[in-house]
Amino acid sequence: MSAPALPPGITPLTAEEEAVMRALGRLMLVLPRALTTDLERDQRMSASEYSVLRNLSESRCGSMRMTELALACDMSLSGMTRLAAKLEAQGFLKRTKCDSDARGWNAVLTEQGLARLEEAWPTHLASVRRHIFDHLADLDLPTLAKALNAMAGDD
Amino acid sequence: MSAPALPPGITPLTAEEEAVMRALGRLMLVLPRALTTDLERDQRMSASEYSVLRNLSESRCGSMRMTELALACDMSLSGMTRLAAKLEAQGFLKRTKCDSDARGWNAVLTEQGLARLEEAWPTHLASVRRHIFDHLADLDLPTLAKALNAMAGDD
Repeated sequence: MSAPALPPGITPLTAEEEAVMRALGRLMLVLPRALTTDLERDQRMSASEYSVLRNLSESRCGSMRMTELALACDMSLSGMTRLAAKLEAQGFLKRTKCDSDARGWNAVLTEQGLARLEEAWPTHLASVRRHIFDHLADLDLPTLAKALNAMAGDD
Repeated sequence: MSAPALPPGITPLTAEEEAVMRALGRLMLVLPRALTTDLERDQRMSASEYSVLRNLSESRCGSMRMTELALACDMSLSGMTRLAAKLEAQGFLKRTKCDSDARGWNAVLTEQGLARLEEAWPTHLASVRRHIFDHLADLDLPTLAKALNAMAGDD
């Protein structure tokens, strides 16, 4: 491609930057699928189901507002409502009215839900080690975490 | 969470690994949207449209099989067929029959399509610098690219 005018201070990518950019693009397509495939194959559990149980298990009292939970799992509220109904039917969570807001609902992790998460956790952990951490030995993890957070806009 | 039995050789994530994992999860949600938002706002162009023009511009003779192009842009063939029809109506590409396979179609970049890509490129480059490379000064880029490729299964 010929070089059109660039905004002040913006320079084309170097070959090294280009390589990072291509790898990052591939990773963002491939990694979520690889983790999901492992969970589905070994646990018959979707990544969203795992994410719901994990978020609840890490929350105060194992309970979250449905709106918060949808946000944390990157789902729409209507999608989360359907998924919570499925998980409730399986006995993994309960939905209760909020004390503070009559229109709001909470999702509450049950003991059975926690047991299901604990059953799935080793699969997910092994998958995360194999796909991610087995390949990061040459990088300083705190520096990497800081850079990833900054890229995600959390700096 | 209590510690259930783990597969042999699999250890729980350390705090540093946990931090990388969370940052990576956030990044995979946030970064594609940030790049897309910039393109749509400043160029009225979708990320898929940009990806089609870029892939064609980098291919031999500016031409690719529709099936290859769909794969490269991570789209279904039917989705790519619709998008290519739109881009063809705008004059940015042409669809031609394959010489070697009567059932196959090629997408061919037009001069107007290349000009459109060159017009959008500075916006995308500035966006990539701002969201990605401005935050990677502390990392060795070749080492990072190698790790990202390995995570994406390309090692």
